[in-house]
Amino acid sequence: MFNQPMLRDDALKGKTIVVTGGGTGLGKAMGTYFLKLGANLVITSRKLDVLQQTALEMEKETGGKVLALACDVREYEQVEHVLVETLKTFGKVDALLNNAAGNFISPTERLSANAFSSIIDIVLKGSVNCTLAFGKHWIKEKQTASVLNIVTTYAFTGSAYVVPSACAKGGVLAMTRSLAVEWGKYGIRTNAIAPGPFPTKGAWERLLPGDLAEKFDFKNRVPLKRVGEHQELANLAAFLISDFAGYINGEVITIDGGEWLQGAGQFNGLEAIPNEMWDAFEQMTRSAKGS
Amino acid sequence: MFNQPMLRDDALKGKTIVVTGGGTGLGKAMGTYFLKLGANLVITSRKLDVLQQTALEMEKETGGKVLALACDVREYEQVEHVLVETLKTFGKVDALLNNAAGNFISPTERLSANAFSSIIDIVLKGSVNCTLAFGKHWIKEKQTASVLNIVTTYAFTGSAYVVPSACAKGGVLAMTRSLAVEWGKYGIRTNAIAPGPFPTKGAWERLLPGDLAEKFDFKNRVPLKRVGEHQELANLAAFLISDFAGYINGEVITIDGGEWLQGAGQFNGLEAIPNEMWDAFEQMTRSAKGS
Amino acid sequence: MFNQPMLRDDALKGKTIVVTGGGTGLGKAMGTYFLKLGANLVITSRKLDVLQQTALEMEKETGGKVLALACDVREYEQVEHVLVETLKTFGKVDALLNNAAGNFISPTERLSANAFSSIIDIVLKGSVNCTLAFGKHWIKEKQTASVLNIVTTYAFTGSAYVVPSACAKGGVLAMTRSLAVEWGKYGIRTNAIAPGPFPTKGAWERLLPGDLAEKFDFKNRVPLKRVGEHQELANLAAFLISDFAGYINGEVITIDGGEWLQGAGQFNGLEAIPNEMWDAFEQMTRSAKGS
Amino acid sequence: MFNQPMLRDDALKGKTIVVTGGGTGLGKAMGTYFLKLGANLVITSRKLDVLQQTALEMEKETGGKVLALACDVREYEQVEHVLVETLKTFGKVDALLNNAAGNFISPTERLSANAFSSIIDIVLKGSVNCTLAFGKHWIKEKQTASVLNIVTTYAFTGSAYVVPSACAKGGVLAMTRSLAVEWGKYGIRTNAIAPGPFPTKGAWERLLPGDLAEKFDFKNRVPLKRVGEHQELANLAAFLISDFAGYINGEVITIDGGEWLQGAGQFNGLEAIPNEMWDAFEQMTRSAKGS
Repeated sequence: MFNQPMLRDDALKGKTIVVTGGGTGLGKAMGTYFLKLGANLVITSRKLDVLQQTALEMEKETGGKVLALACDVREYEQVEHVLVETLKTFGKVDALLNNAAGNFISPTERLSANAFSSIIDIVLKGSVNCTLAFGKHWIKEKQTASVLNIVTTYAFTGSAYVVPSACAKGGVLAMTRSLAVEWGKYGIRTNAIAPGPFPTKGAWERLLPGDLAEKFDFKNRVPLKRVGEHQELANLAAFLISDFAGYINGEVITIDGGEWLQGAGQFNGLEAIPNEMWDAFEQMTRSAKGS
Repeated sequence: MFNQPMLRDDALKGKTIVVTGGGTGLGKAMGTYFLKLGANLVITSRKLDVLQQTALEMEKETGGKVLALACDVREYEQVEHVLVETLKTFGKVDALLNNAAGNFISPTERLSANAFSSIIDIVLKGSVNCTLAFGKHWIKEKQTASVLNIVTTYAFTGSAYVVPSACAKGGVLAMTRSLAVEWGKYGIRTNAIAPGPFPTKGAWERLLPGDLAEKFDFKNRVPLKRVGEHQELANLAAFLISDFAGYINGEVITIDGGEWLQGAGQFNGLEAIPNEMWDAFEQMTRSAKGS
Repeated sequence: MFNQPMLRDDALKGKTIVVTGGGTGLGKAMGTYFLKLGANLVITSRKLDVLQQTALEMEKETGGKVLALACDVREYEQVEHVLVETLKTFGKVDALLNNAAGNFISPTERLSANAFSSIIDIVLKGSVNCTLAFGKHWIKEKQTASVLNIVTTYAFTGSAYVVPSACAKGGVLAMTRSLAVEWGKYGIRTNAIAPGPFPTKGAWERLLPGDLAEKFDFKNRVPLKRVGEHQELANLAAFLISDFAGYINGEVITIDGGEWLQGAGQFNGLEAIPNEMWDAFEQMTRSAKGS
Repeated sequence: MFNQPMLRDDALKGKTIVVTGGGTGLGKAMGTYFLKLGANLVITSRKLDVLQQTALEMEKETGGKVLALACDVREYEQVEHVLVETLKTFGKVDALLNNAAGNFISPTERLSANAFSSIIDIVLKGSVNCTLAFGKHWIKEKQTASVLNIVTTYAFTGSAYVVPSACAKGGVLAMTRSLAVEWGKYGIRTNAIAPGPFPTKGAWERLLPGDLAEKFDFKNRVPLKRVGEHQELANLAAFLISDFAGYINGEVITIDGGEWLQGAGQFNGLEAIPNEMWDAFEQMTRSAKGS
């Protein structure tokens, strides 16, 4: 059942939703579900040809209406252009999904300051630009709206080897909590999702040789022993953008099967102990030493 | 729309769900929605007459089946009895909602050790007892299941004047994160909800004289300027218990309109500054002093 | 240098400090350092003979004054007795270190409700009892004071296989944050330390066979590749109890070399990739896909 | 005692420490204390004249050696220049204190994308640049070292009206946790401090008219009813940079008297209730409703 759509029909009827980085992967999966729920969709990325192909597919699958717009989110003018074109086509806009991202997987000391900076520009400044442009519009028009930011669990735990992305996503998380309060009075809700492993095609771990591939098999890092299905993320995203989540504001919801907690908890590694050994331990370790 | 049911019909069809503290207030609201989604329901509390009355109302409203069982969750044997009776009536049990609670609103130094202890017993040991009894059953039967714990935002922020409850709910939060990892391998998901202000009848703040009532009007503490509707909490609870949330595990989801963040953020109080003053400040404060 | 004492001489001069669970291990190490800094010390546990032996050692090593008192922290009357005896001997008391603890390392479903409950009683109710008895005294006497609670990182991350302790420590953490606010106005500061691996003698991992011992070697879980020295914990504890930390209140300080973060961060496992492989990846993975 | 220096003499003897934004305010206070503990100091900012004046004062007060270097931390080459000059003067460098910052206090919708961006550049990219340049040096030289970042409590809570700073500091916090793990193996510790209200001269709240000034009087937001003393922050910073904190890694320590917790906890506002009213409530509210 976890790959089935969950919301009532027409849950997003009449809403116009902009998804940055909406041409591929998770952005595409979320956008497709928004369409099925009755929304109008705008997808943006830097690659117009990919977007247009995706838009056609989406319209065919869902019968909905999709506007594909090239946009480098680092450029505020281009973001404003997306807003203008969206209003021209759909008359209004109700929600923004900040999904566009970039990443370098690398030891940090191998990165140049420029490379590091470019990820901050795409992920953090890009999200800021979109949120600022759309927010100014909503506040001026006195329109209620919803912002949803895709972050990661390492936005709050940090992570080695993806430090530029961690910094940028950490910034987006702080923006989420800040604007939830500041713009709540305007009826603008701001939330985030921290997805765990939702593999997309070409996942990099396939490049790894045997034992490393095993070590980095995300399934093993997750208590539920599986990765996520795209529809599961889409269900959560649609819920948060919809009016059904009207009292959730400033929240970041983790959907990772328990992945980050499995790593974090000090004794979680004891899962490797077989049952017979626990039988043997049972006597030895029962020593409530309290005082 | 925020007081409308959100999940597809039959989203909980065939599931049997036990709600502790299910006779009144939020427990009743959540249970009623579970029934509407096709679940069988067991409600427990110490007051059998209240439970039975509620069960009748629920069955009449929803056409579902409700079992009312007296249970003091502090007593493990009584919890085991609930499990046995549930299995007798419905054949199996799929989810546990730890909702029973108690609270003293008081300066901590006015509490006796006994009073403090009694809240820990009801809230923390009660949740432990239920989770342990049902978990042992599920693991033995190799059955997948879901546990949902109702905590509060002060489970992680702490709060004055409700310290026994804060301690107990903090413990439940730690249990949520611990068992999500440990029992994930058995297909048991464990999550929590931290609700903000969802008033129930007889809310204590009505007892306060004028200026205090204003100060403690929860609406003013929430960026969205309103309290929550019971159906909004019910929507979230039903989602988390359903298979649609199959990849959410170990998570505590806050639904408070942004209440705790509004208090926490250092400059959030500046909302009191009127627009004209911001106009005047605009020059003065623009001093990016960086270096 | 990390095993050297850090505070100025006499930093705790004239203070009387009560350490529960003070007869052995980390409690003993912290207490010894408090004595060296000029404090009077009270140590408690259920084992009077151990305490008295420790008191003698401590007095010999430091020239300080130590009172050893048998106390089961689960019994409020016994805690009140400690307070009375402390006042009789030293005239006043300035700080409480809630260090007494108990633990079961076990799959949760193997625990009885009674076993689970007993850990909550020792760790959570024990800390509550001490804090309540001493707090009432300080508030009545209008005396400033300091409470320090020893928790763990799994108080906030949770952990499998030590769930009773996780619940109890989670409760103590919530108490820390709650009373820091509520009792701050009385000049009572409340803080906590979450220590990572500070092995004491008889550490249980020595019981494990080869590959498990390697897997659970705490050094490997810590970015700094070592466990902690007792003096490092003692330095931090002395700082937090001293007036030098007079503006730190409601804080839990983790001292674990980065252990919990290493587990938590999604890509931290990539440390296993050798340098040559990074050389090879450098081209492949440079794909800032953003938009 | 809270405005007295706390560490043993010579605690930083022989260490060379670089403080960005070191010419004024808190950076100056921390740097001065580092000198008193035996360190060599490098201070940077964009204003060379201010720096040079400060350097003279510091040398006079402490007898230590101070190098003043103009540096715009947004420019990587200028940061590299600081490194080169530091090595020329002192032979090596042991610690970096990322303290330089900028801020706009403003409703977010009044900010231009450029203004928002400039704060991210100063605070986040500036900290990244310094950390990257010094880190590469330390790793190449196989030298142990320590990085300390000054963030804020709203790095994790978010805050309205200072959103660019919140985003940037949120990013720095994620960097702290990420590099603590990634660079721990090189012997580089990375930590952060989140200071609450430590007023510096010209504090903006003096500009506010009466009732707003009262409302924003930071003392009222702090359980301890006072703001922080600069020496208290200096004590904590010196501790974290020193080898005495050798097992603290990846940690952000809040020193705010409990400020953010006071705002966050749901019932903390009940402090306004006078004692007589609690007397009256005592009967009414004692209703442990549990079940």
